Amino acid sequence: MKYCVGIDFGTLSARALLVEVGTGRELSTAVCEYPHAVMDEHLPDGTPLMPDWALQHPKDYLDAIAATVPEVIRQAGVDKNDVVGVGIDFTACTMLPVYRDGTPLCFDEALTSNPHAYVKLWKHHAAQAHANRLNEIAAARGEKFLARYGGKISSEWMVPKIWQILDEAPEIYEKADRFLEAADWVVWQLCGKEMRNSCTAGYKAIWHKREGYPSSDFFKALDPRLENLVDEKLSREIHSIGEKAGEITEKAAAFSGLPVGCAVAVANVDAHVSVPALGICESGNMLMIMGTSTCHIHLGDEERIVPGMCGVVEDGVLPGFMGYEAGQSCVGDHFNWFVENLACADYEREAKERGLSLHQLLTEKAEKLAVGESGLVALDWWNGNRSVLVDVDLTGMILGLTLLTKPEEIYRALIEATAYGTRKIIETFEESGVPITGLYACGGIAEKNPFAMQIYADVTGKEIRVARSAQSPALGSAMFGAVAAGKAKGGYDSIFEAAKEMGGVKERSFQPVEENQRVYDQLYAEYSILHDYFGRGENNVMKRLKKIKAEQIAKKL
Amino acid sequence: MKYCVGIDFGTLSARALLVEVGTGRELSTAVCEYPHAVMDEHLPDGTPLMPDWALQHPKDYLDAIAATVPEVIRQAGVDKNDVVGVGIDFTACTMLPVYRDGTPLCFDEALTSNPHAYVKLWKHHAAQAHANRLNEIAAARGEKFLARYGGKISSEWMVPKIWQILDEAPEIYEKADRFLEAADWVVWQLCGKEMRNSCTAGYKAIWHKREGYPSSDFFKALDPRLENLVDEKLSREIHSIGEKAGEITEKAAAFSGLPVGCAVAVANVDAHVSVPALGICESGNMLMIMGTSTCHIHLGDEERIVPGMCGVVEDGVLPGFMGYEAGQSCVGDHFNWFVENLACADYEREAKERGLSLHQLLTEKAEKLAVGESGLVALDWWNGNRSVLVDVDLTGMILGLTLLTKPEEIYRALIEATAYGTRKIIETFEESGVPITGLYACGGIAEKNPFAMQIYADVTGKEIRVARSAQSPALGSAMFGAVAAGKAKGGYDSIFEAAKEMGGVKERSFQPVEENQRVYDQLYAEYSILHDYFGRGENNVMKRLKKIKAEQIAKKL
Repeated sequence: MKYCVGIDFGTLSARALLVEVGTGRELSTAVCEYPHAVMDEHLPDGTPLMPDWALQHPKDYLDAIAATVPEVIRQAGVDKNDVVGVGIDFTACTMLPVYRDGTPLCFDEALTSNPHAYVKLWKHHAAQAHANRLNEIAAARGEKFLARYGGKISSEWMVPKIWQILDEAPEIYEKADRFLEAADWVVWQLCGKEMRNSCTAGYKAIWHKREGYPSSDFFKALDPRLENLVDEKLSREIHSIGEKAGEITEKAAAFSGLPVGCAVAVANVDAHVSVPALGICESGNMLMIMGTSTCHIHLGDEERIVPGMCGVVEDGVLPGFMGYEAGQSCVGDHFNWFVENLACADYEREAKERGLSLHQLLTEKAEKLAVGESGLVALDWWNGNRSVLVDVDLTGMILGLTLLTKPEEIYRALIEATAYGTRKIIETFEESGVPITGLYACGGIAEKNPFAMQIYADVTGKEIRVARSAQSPALGSAMFGAVAAGKAKGGYDSIFEAAKEMGGVKERSFQPVEENQRVYDQLYAEYSILHDYFGRGENNVMKRLKKIKAEQIAKKL
Repeated sequence: MKYCVGIDFGTLSARALLVEVGTGRELSTAVCEYPHAVMDEHLPDGTPLMPDWALQHPKDYLDAIAATVPEVIRQAGVDKNDVVGVGIDFTACTMLPVYRDGTPLCFDEALTSNPHAYVKLWKHHAAQAHANRLNEIAAARGEKFLARYGGKISSEWMVPKIWQILDEAPEIYEKADRFLEAADWVVWQLCGKEMRNSCTAGYKAIWHKREGYPSSDFFKALDPRLENLVDEKLSREIHSIGEKAGEITEKAAAFSGLPVGCAVAVANVDAHVSVPALGICESGNMLMIMGTSTCHIHLGDEERIVPGMCGVVEDGVLPGFMGYEAGQSCVGDHFNWFVENLACADYEREAKERGLSLHQLLTEKAEKLAVGESGLVALDWWNGNRSVLVDVDLTGMILGLTLLTKPEEIYRALIEATAYGTRKIIETFEESGVPITGLYACGGIAEKNPFAMQIYADVTGKEIRVARSAQSPALGSAMFGAVAAGKAKGGYDSIFEAAKEMGGVKERSFQPVEENQRVYDQLYAEYSILHDYFGRGENNVMKRLKKIKAEQIAKKL
């Protein structure tokens, strides 16, 4: 029997999973929290950080491998030489500057006090001004690539982050030989070479399989010093998801416990890598990765422009497909916000007495309500709207409140609002010529919240199938590891074979209930009117209130 | 020294206040809770009541007098013969059927199990179908009186309540010799004669000083049996506020402890009677009686039609003035709803530890926010909108929510929303040719919540003066008692003299802060856009959601 290992690098910790090739049986798992976690207040030496910064320490990634991979091999009791492949997935865009040999600039003792020498985590938001400027320039120049990203490049992505470094720390920009995703950097540490992946290149670095990067003219228009950024500090050599990056080097074997020569897959992104873990191999299927926020990954055959999508990338998810990404910036976060701020003391007492979490208690109460019984409708914009409006300045709204409105009714309305948001995304895809024939889900909410999942089925009118594995990203990564190994070494020759044998969904799926659907159709019609009224410029009250808010906070400081 | 007594009959209790004539000094007060409180589930003998019913037992009113009036005389240590006058005020329309001699039908042993024999409290809402039908017929007939009541007669008022009795219990309608306000019934018990007051007649029974009641034709159109309602069971003899009703009879002296011959004032309504208690004697002034809901009483010189007012009645508040009434159906109730349902456990703990109420804690936190800092705006329609939209099917809305929104921000937004609602009423009056030159406040919120009052001043841009007395209704009633006595007996010859000597406001008034006003002007502009969008038919989502809600609840039953 052969095995493969997947490592899922999250925001605060990394998880390794050891899986049996051929069956997908998960033998062991181990988690390691990053020692430096997210650095958003100061560097390890005390250097303070500005608001909106979010850094990581790259050493944590290697330490996490050392802490988890040998552990899963030990736990599973397998011979490490039977581990034929390893794959990793990462948050993105999580990027760092390195020297030519792959050494991060922050490892350089002369630079340990310079914030720009560290890893900029995906949620580092201090490059917003650069993103805004980039979008203005791209729009003014009529750059075609904007349409592939819903009309806007996010401040979270690669080019705004690099531009911020150039602007605020030109010496770091100068010293850096390469800027790359942490995902690709970890693969480099495992197999000894720079092998950039098509997923992050496409979704986060404005790369296109056929058209390449934006032109040098465009980069020059941003800043003359950026003119040759791609050739000098990025790479035009991009490797498709599903390829082999290389093999575990002796140095990597020493800290990872993996055998020298073990195949290493090209890196991937946490959401995207989950697709084969559910056994999804055909176009028309959409996977929702549902947690604090939701990411929608869809496999299509053709490149279409879908308003408000986060990106469409050929080979970005599975080779041979157009991978579409869309998202909702706030899903579980809504429910947590409610529980943390607005769950009354009586409910806390009841939950404690009955040994339930507040989420469980609210769910139990909310489940007893009929669809529409609360009379509430909410707009799920507590953290702005990613798809399909791409507008961070939108805010949340709830309507239909009365003196008899109960907490569980608001809680349910928040869940429903996120389901309406998903339906809006699905409808926008379909109206843009990208049909959604199958709907899948994974992540914490899909795994633990059947009540929410039933609402999603009722609201979308679609059956929803849920990942069999509770660790879809790590499983998907392990599968790509097996593909990197190849059939001859006991793995697979393609991710589709791996998906068929190792991926899958739970037996129980969520079927829409016709009676609920009928009422939700009415409620969704109301949501849509409000969505367009507040979201498409008819009444920009949310933006005006945000502006007043910003002015008043500024006055206070 | 001479004294007068005011008795304020509230929803759950009655309060007596003994006051010194000439100074307004309050010597003693006593409260009595009604033994039967509000009967909304069953009668004393167990007969069940339908939803929306709210009854009272008239015996409770007499028992409350017996429990409080002798007590305030005793406490004050004055000679009862120096009490020269008594006045009362009441909730309205709170009405009952009585026999010719004033005996309530529910005192008749044969009728104690008949719900229609009891007092229908102001908030008895089971006559809604009759009110709807009345409004349709009145509108179809082009009845002019509708305009004086904001276009709608409320289900809470006299004629719908009588019609419900006729419809559901024709035998009670038949047996009843009189239908009258509980206020007038209590005065009858005190002075031995039926002396109906112009305030309830005008605001609640569609009476007009110059035009009288609606025509017999109109009543006939409702139901042929109602054709002669006014002459048979009401009265065309209406006495102005400020008149003497009569004198304490021997029978009344026995239970009230008041001296025989003590003057009794024509009855009044709790909100309206407060006006002279603040010393308000001139036209152009508006008084807000602020509690769970807010009632706005305004003195004008001419009869104008103000959209959405509750009524305009000549002599309805003070003799010689047009008394305008408007209202907000939910004010303190908003804040209580929030504290009861959505104040999180952490805040409850903090409040308990620091010995504060949740309201106090939330106020303390909300006070630290700058105007507009929360980014929130709410529509204060948790209980529908009374003025100026007159629409019970509107519901509450809150907008601008983010993941960082704190409970105190929502709490403050609810207070602000009610202040915007008041500004909307004031502006509507002014746009209708009824200028508001002075703004006054009394009631629980005015008395206890300087934070809210400052917001009201900032939002309206008007100085707000607050009642000196914490018991404005009882003080106002006592003053009318002194006026009933007359100068010769140690009282006053007019309520204006009494108001000047006995009424007044606190030294501290609330002045608008210009800087806050500027920001609130912007926020109020947003409120107004949303008010009209949701409230004037552009998007009737609130009504549609209510309809869906009703259908879904009905399905469940």
